[in-house]
Amino acid sequence: MLRRALASRQTLLRHRVLSTRTETDSFGPLEVPSDKYYGAQTARSMINFPIGGPEARMPLALIHAFGVLKKCSALYNKRTGRLDEKIADAIAAAADEVASGKLDDHFPLVVYQTGSGTQTNMNCNEVIANRAIELLGGVIGSKEPVHPNDHVNMGQSSNDSFPTAMHISAVTELENRLLPSLEHLRKALAQKSDEFSSIIKIGRTHCQDATPVTLGQVFSGYEAQVADSIERVKGALPRLRKLALGGTAVGTGLNTKAGYDVAIAADIANETGLAFETAPNKFAALAAHDAIVEACGQLAATACALNKIANDLRLLGSGPRSGLGEIALPENEPGSSIMPGKVNPTQCEAVTMVAARVVGDCATAQFGGAQGHFELNVFKPVMAMALLSSTRLLADCSVAFTDKCVSGIVANEGRIGDLMASSLMLVTALNPHIGYDNATKVAKKAHKDGTSLIEAGEALGLFTAQQFGEWVRPERMIAPEP
Amino acid sequence: MLRRALASRQTLLRHRVLSTRTETDSFGPLEVPSDKYYGAQTARSMINFPIGGPEARMPLALIHAFGVLKKCSALYNKRTGRLDEKIADAIAAAADEVASGKLDDHFPLVVYQTGSGTQTNMNCNEVIANRAIELLGGVIGSKEPVHPNDHVNMGQSSNDSFPTAMHISAVTELENRLLPSLEHLRKALAQKSDEFSSIIKIGRTHCQDATPVTLGQVFSGYEAQVADSIERVKGALPRLRKLALGGTAVGTGLNTKAGYDVAIAADIANETGLAFETAPNKFAALAAHDAIVEACGQLAATACALNKIANDLRLLGSGPRSGLGEIALPENEPGSSIMPGKVNPTQCEAVTMVAARVVGDCATAQFGGAQGHFELNVFKPVMAMALLSSTRLLADCSVAFTDKCVSGIVANEGRIGDLMASSLMLVTALNPHIGYDNATKVAKKAHKDGTSLIEAGEALGLFTAQQFGEWVRPERMIAPEP
Amino acid sequence: MLRRALASRQTLLRHRVLSTRTETDSFGPLEVPSDKYYGAQTARSMINFPIGGPEARMPLALIHAFGVLKKCSALYNKRTGRLDEKIADAIAAAADEVASGKLDDHFPLVVYQTGSGTQTNMNCNEVIANRAIELLGGVIGSKEPVHPNDHVNMGQSSNDSFPTAMHISAVTELENRLLPSLEHLRKALAQKSDEFSSIIKIGRTHCQDATPVTLGQVFSGYEAQVADSIERVKGALPRLRKLALGGTAVGTGLNTKAGYDVAIAADIANETGLAFETAPNKFAALAAHDAIVEACGQLAATACALNKIANDLRLLGSGPRSGLGEIALPENEPGSSIMPGKVNPTQCEAVTMVAARVVGDCATAQFGGAQGHFELNVFKPVMAMALLSSTRLLADCSVAFTDKCVSGIVANEGRIGDLMASSLMLVTALNPHIGYDNATKVAKKAHKDGTSLIEAGEALGLFTAQQFGEWVRPERMIAPEP
Amino acid sequence: MLRRALASRQTLLRHRVLSTRTETDSFGPLEVPSDKYYGAQTARSMINFPIGGPEARMPLALIHAFGVLKKCSALYNKRTGRLDEKIADAIAAAADEVASGKLDDHFPLVVYQTGSGTQTNMNCNEVIANRAIELLGGVIGSKEPVHPNDHVNMGQSSNDSFPTAMHISAVTELENRLLPSLEHLRKALAQKSDEFSSIIKIGRTHCQDATPVTLGQVFSGYEAQVADSIERVKGALPRLRKLALGGTAVGTGLNTKAGYDVAIAADIANETGLAFETAPNKFAALAAHDAIVEACGQLAATACALNKIANDLRLLGSGPRSGLGEIALPENEPGSSIMPGKVNPTQCEAVTMVAARVVGDCATAQFGGAQGHFELNVFKPVMAMALLSSTRLLADCSVAFTDKCVSGIVANEGRIGDLMASSLMLVTALNPHIGYDNATKVAKKAHKDGTSLIEAGEALGLFTAQQFGEWVRPERMIAPEP
Repeated sequence: MLRRALASRQTLLRHRVLSTRTETDSFGPLEVPSDKYYGAQTARSMINFPIGGPEARMPLALIHAFGVLKKCSALYNKRTGRLDEKIADAIAAAADEVASGKLDDHFPLVVYQTGSGTQTNMNCNEVIANRAIELLGGVIGSKEPVHPNDHVNMGQSSNDSFPTAMHISAVTELENRLLPSLEHLRKALAQKSDEFSSIIKIGRTHCQDATPVTLGQVFSGYEAQVADSIERVKGALPRLRKLALGGTAVGTGLNTKAGYDVAIAADIANETGLAFETAPNKFAALAAHDAIVEACGQLAATACALNKIANDLRLLGSGPRSGLGEIALPENEPGSSIMPGKVNPTQCEAVTMVAARVVGDCATAQFGGAQGHFELNVFKPVMAMALLSSTRLLADCSVAFTDKCVSGIVANEGRIGDLMASSLMLVTALNPHIGYDNATKVAKKAHKDGTSLIEAGEALGLFTAQQFGEWVRPERMIAPEP
Repeated sequence: MLRRALASRQTLLRHRVLSTRTETDSFGPLEVPSDKYYGAQTARSMINFPIGGPEARMPLALIHAFGVLKKCSALYNKRTGRLDEKIADAIAAAADEVASGKLDDHFPLVVYQTGSGTQTNMNCNEVIANRAIELLGGVIGSKEPVHPNDHVNMGQSSNDSFPTAMHISAVTELENRLLPSLEHLRKALAQKSDEFSSIIKIGRTHCQDATPVTLGQVFSGYEAQVADSIERVKGALPRLRKLALGGTAVGTGLNTKAGYDVAIAADIANETGLAFETAPNKFAALAAHDAIVEACGQLAATACALNKIANDLRLLGSGPRSGLGEIALPENEPGSSIMPGKVNPTQCEAVTMVAARVVGDCATAQFGGAQGHFELNVFKPVMAMALLSSTRLLADCSVAFTDKCVSGIVANEGRIGDLMASSLMLVTALNPHIGYDNATKVAKKAHKDGTSLIEAGEALGLFTAQQFGEWVRPERMIAPEP
Repeated sequence: MLRRALASRQTLLRHRVLSTRTETDSFGPLEVPSDKYYGAQTARSMINFPIGGPEARMPLALIHAFGVLKKCSALYNKRTGRLDEKIADAIAAAADEVASGKLDDHFPLVVYQTGSGTQTNMNCNEVIANRAIELLGGVIGSKEPVHPNDHVNMGQSSNDSFPTAMHISAVTELENRLLPSLEHLRKALAQKSDEFSSIIKIGRTHCQDATPVTLGQVFSGYEAQVADSIERVKGALPRLRKLALGGTAVGTGLNTKAGYDVAIAADIANETGLAFETAPNKFAALAAHDAIVEACGQLAATACALNKIANDLRLLGSGPRSGLGEIALPENEPGSSIMPGKVNPTQCEAVTMVAARVVGDCATAQFGGAQGHFELNVFKPVMAMALLSSTRLLADCSVAFTDKCVSGIVANEGRIGDLMASSLMLVTALNPHIGYDNATKVAKKAHKDGTSLIEAGEALGLFTAQQFGEWVRPERMIAPEP
Repeated sequence: MLRRALASRQTLLRHRVLSTRTETDSFGPLEVPSDKYYGAQTARSMINFPIGGPEARMPLALIHAFGVLKKCSALYNKRTGRLDEKIADAIAAAADEVASGKLDDHFPLVVYQTGSGTQTNMNCNEVIANRAIELLGGVIGSKEPVHPNDHVNMGQSSNDSFPTAMHISAVTELENRLLPSLEHLRKALAQKSDEFSSIIKIGRTHCQDATPVTLGQVFSGYEAQVADSIERVKGALPRLRKLALGGTAVGTGLNTKAGYDVAIAADIANETGLAFETAPNKFAALAAHDAIVEACGQLAATACALNKIANDLRLLGSGPRSGLGEIALPENEPGSSIMPGKVNPTQCEAVTMVAARVVGDCATAQFGGAQGHFELNVFKPVMAMALLSSTRLLADCSVAFTDKCVSGIVANEGRIGDLMASSLMLVTALNPHIGYDNATKVAKKAHKDGTSLIEAGEALGLFTAQQFGEWVRPERMIAPEP
């Protein structure tokens, strides 16, 4: 049994590597695949942490952020004369490739490694060094003329560069991916709210019939939820914009020059086109990741909002005959081959499953965020994964949900009208005309007999259908009196 | 502002204490209310931990368990000659009063105190000592002839007695309170399943109409969920039956005699009439509370089951006109004064709110359970509260839900029949008779025209209403072919 | 067994009621205790929802907020001529007593009731009506001249007033209780950071020795965490300041006048001295409580920060002999009677237990927030409890932690110096003087022999103690080069 | 911005498909890559659900379980004469390849799709049909002679087959992967417990020095936690062994023969060599997944146990100079290049990060498990992922933790002895010889002067070093008196 389990753990490495080269770290030599840029420390991590398989891979958004960081560092070091110009430029070029995603295949490590992310930092250093060596015509693996530690990692520690990459990737993904996706959804909901603004339907509280609302008002509520979600995601950004870089190993900035932290944060802001600044307190920036916990909390609140909306839509669209059936969701794939109208609310289901995952990611971030020790929180990779995964899932599902579901929703006006007509809640509008007690009698009779209010009222001789039509005007029940 | 906040924190203490006596601990003298049995360490804890107010009080079930533990210890110490007979008997009598709840008002401490629960252990020692002194005609507060530490706490440490009280109270509450309540609910669901066994209704998957089921089958599913929940609660008991007592301060049993742990567990089992045994490994029993985490997980699974059931019931009972309306829930309080039939599913709402809380308690237990250090987990009180609170809430709401909701549910057979009659899903039964393609035509026409399958079939000339009645027999669609 | 469980459920009611009066609701008459102001609907709720006992009581902060709301409503109704002046003033006076906490004993209901909190709204209406009747010299229970529904609840629905009370109480508690408490803690940490600014100690990353930091820097990190927590709590306020009042039953504002919502929000802001405004979208304000989910997420992030700080402090204060022992925490209660110096970090333990609870409350809020249906989320009471409980616990423990722990922390400078002196991490400062390879030799020898770097260096003939003293200056290792 | 987000969503599809064939479903034709066996419904799902990228892929363990299920179904259908022998055998052969993992590349779908997992069921049907067609010499995509629905899916519904695959994969992974891995860890801890059985060390409670324990006892506590975890994982299996197959679309078993469910469960048990049986209630088996919620809870409890152990080990191994330093963890990768002895506890960090994730998975399962509607829970894929991911992570990290950390732990006996010698806790052993008061004096003096108990006792003239040696015997403090 165990053998079988162990065997499957080799999966990550098997790739049927035909050709290798030897790379070395302070622990000794290791074979690495010839077609990969990474070196011995990366390969060693793969041996030491065969945990979780491909699904547990370090998020690529974080790797790309490391590319940005390494490029900015190299150029800063060049500018301040600490790093040879040719080497710096080669590093910057290689780092650019990392940032662009061109070298994704060279980052095989999983999240479950050193809690500081050191090995992913080294993975970046190794890949960039070897690619830079290649660009400069050197021998890959020789560490000449570009050394992964001495040159690529110059002035950095894993302890400050990993959280910096966490924050860069978080802000990038939240601003460039999630916020536009939520806005896309919000707009579609607003459009539907307009489109449905004159469709009056029964309201429901406690899942029970209540006074009328317009379908447009219902969608305006959804829109408001998404609009507020956008605000709360934005609210988490200020603390994510603060970068740890310059804190080095323990937050003191040992081995850096005064002013480096401010300058490098500005460089990163410039490079990404996004607002970043140096963290005013580097000790907190290394030892805790409250900003990640916070952001995950905001994403969980957003997920709860989407869950509510998606759940409502599938119930409002339930049917075709035995459900509420007030709206029709678009049909995107075969539902039932024989039964027309059975449109499964699959996009809603995807959204609510994403919500389940995002709530779980929040719990993960809280668990890790609470448990740092002394000068270093060592749950960095799993916290980064929680935030980046939630961000992507929410963004992706918001777009799919918008385009494949919300935008195509159609109101079943006939059904909506029938339900309104049969509603007993309208009885409240009779009070001023026949008195509270008579109104109650009408409602009770209609409920008992299963008839409409009109039929009951006529039977009781309290009003005519015409009077009912004049007195009971749902369109006057959907707003305060002017 | 702060002053106001601080002031309100005094609430716990204010009781308008008119008369006090002086009690002393190793930190010095403190005034305590004359009408309370507790002593200086309890009073000191109230000063040091003004956190959370009455809602944060240490669960009484735990206090009662301490009564059992102190009684058994005193009698064991008497039996083995370590404790004077008269003193032991007085302690046992006082401890019995604690166990019975008679002295609840003498336990004012909150959960948020020392993480080992030492102060609640001392609260017990002080109350029992003073009550025993009183029983023996001594002066309360004199520690003569009964000393809270030397006599009441003899052979115990907070570190082993608190987790023992946690387990005693957990098993007691789960066995005596939760399991009978779940069984009560299970039986009511079983009864409804029987009662509704011949009512055929439309099934719903993805919230969409599907092939028929009986209402009895639906309730049988609920019953199965509750029956399984009972099994999983029982499954958590074996590890809760193991008692830490005898481990003393660090798990080694220092200052006890070999065999004490086994004997005292047997005494507690005897006293409570419940199965208990000594924990085979006392180090784990003090340093971790995985059994509490586990039990909270089982309660959360139970809560999820109840949430599903309660949510279904409120949707099936939605209406009176614009919902599914297949069942009617009993009306327990005024819903709408004017609109008959608007019965808010308030018991369902209470159940789902309990579920929300129980899921939170599970998160609390996991957070605390993961973070013990060395020989002692110091999240004991909050973990105890999480488990005991969830247990009580689930038990209480199961009984109320059964008695005030489930038992009174009535099937709206007319509505159920109407929905069945209008269903398009029955079309699948036409396949053998008119072929798949024709069946599809019928369904499409009915859907398009908003008519029944019969009307569509007749219009298409494919069958008569009589044939339909013969061919389409929902009662044959609710089980495998024999 | 069940009988026993049921019996204990009566606890809530037992109070040994000697004298009662009859109150009536639309379900009929019920006896209520003569010394209580509540009426039949409250009493009925106690019968229907015997769930959870005193610990499950509706939070008093919410009741007090209802007092504010009812007062403002009465005065608004008077001002706009809808309500008789005398009645309005009596209601306002009675509501003031509710707001001030004077009538707390008249609010016995638990959280686990109707999910809209209707019964607590009615509890408020009944208490205020009866108290107003009393003030006007009428007969309690007569509903004359003040009617709980017609007068006290005028222009309101439970559906908009309960969420309004949720937001009023949340903002009040966060602003008046939590924020000052966190600020109190932040200041104490800042003061300690100053006090310890020149004490250089070993840093620790991965729980392993690292380059030096000052103890002041460590505390500055803690302060930064609390300062950021304050910001994130503030960040949740804008969406909590939006009040649902004016939405009435389904969000449309039926039965109100245009402008009422804006006016009443202003009145409430005026009454409380806190910023409030009407919710721009009432449909979302009734149907979802994302703002509560969000706030709970922010509190959970704050709790994680406090957990990290408290955990660090207990580890830094561990000992007296076999721990890290760099700081001494104040001793607030007897630790060990015989062993001096064994000061249990009880305040830290209370803080970390609060953190466990707050994380659980966040899970509760998310669970409830995700599951609203249509026009009304019916997890209102449990969500309110989650937020208000977390708020109070964090506030209370922040104050106790500050006053009983942080402010009294003393640095053990001797111990800190000894650890610094014996550290091998200082070897990095020798590089420029004896070269990297020799420095490594020194460190390896010291590690192998268990000696200091000085001893090892002298033994190897690489430097003298005096040279070491000149070259190795921890005070130059705690900041970037200028 | 959005364009960029959308672009990256194409990733899943890009593969640079050079050659395609046309496949068709009821929605029409779609191009699929020529080198893939999947068909139109799979391709359509990729278009409709571009959510989450490769990390969100449906767990392979579930796909493999589907292979088992499809094989057993085909052979059952052959045996009972419903399916042509040649077709059945080809399906079985193709399904075997799916089960073995040989066709993993043909399953591109993500978790976030239809909540019933219908599209993954269709992915299986399509891949198996096309591969079977290939084996029979037919034209891939022709649905001849093997049809994905009519033949591969014969007698099944997604609604019963997906939860069946969930349970098969869960039991397989728990029994074959997790339990042996936990047992592997348990054994290593037991071995260490033996190895360290005579090493007496200071105990620690509240992170403060306490009476002695052996290092072996400490490890015995860890072993007990893992042993109990094994029991609780086993405790979740009974309810996972129950298979939904035979329930078809809504749980009634429509379109199956009586006895099919029992027979197919036996076949699956036979095929896998694991115990399975048919679910006694199919309605619960489709509509809820409490067994998954339960199992995730048990895994979370296990994760909390591992978190506690890993956290203790990193603290006990902290140093090399300024930590507790009682044990040395093996060094698996470069720690600090210059500072010998700085061994980062990287395996412990991986374990605690896994714990963070597993706790999050539990929250995800609870969220999804609570929210099923009517006859079908539609959170199936995300719940499956939560359980399977947690299972694999715990299994993988248990093995790595055992082999790379626990097995290589060495006791630093010198350090342990030094701490014991300097401990003040031993003073309790002096009581019988010099009295409690004198013992306290000795301890106070030693604490004040920073000396040993011997030095203090000699200075006070209370005993000689020799007497101390005779009286104070830590080896007698680690167990009850015999």
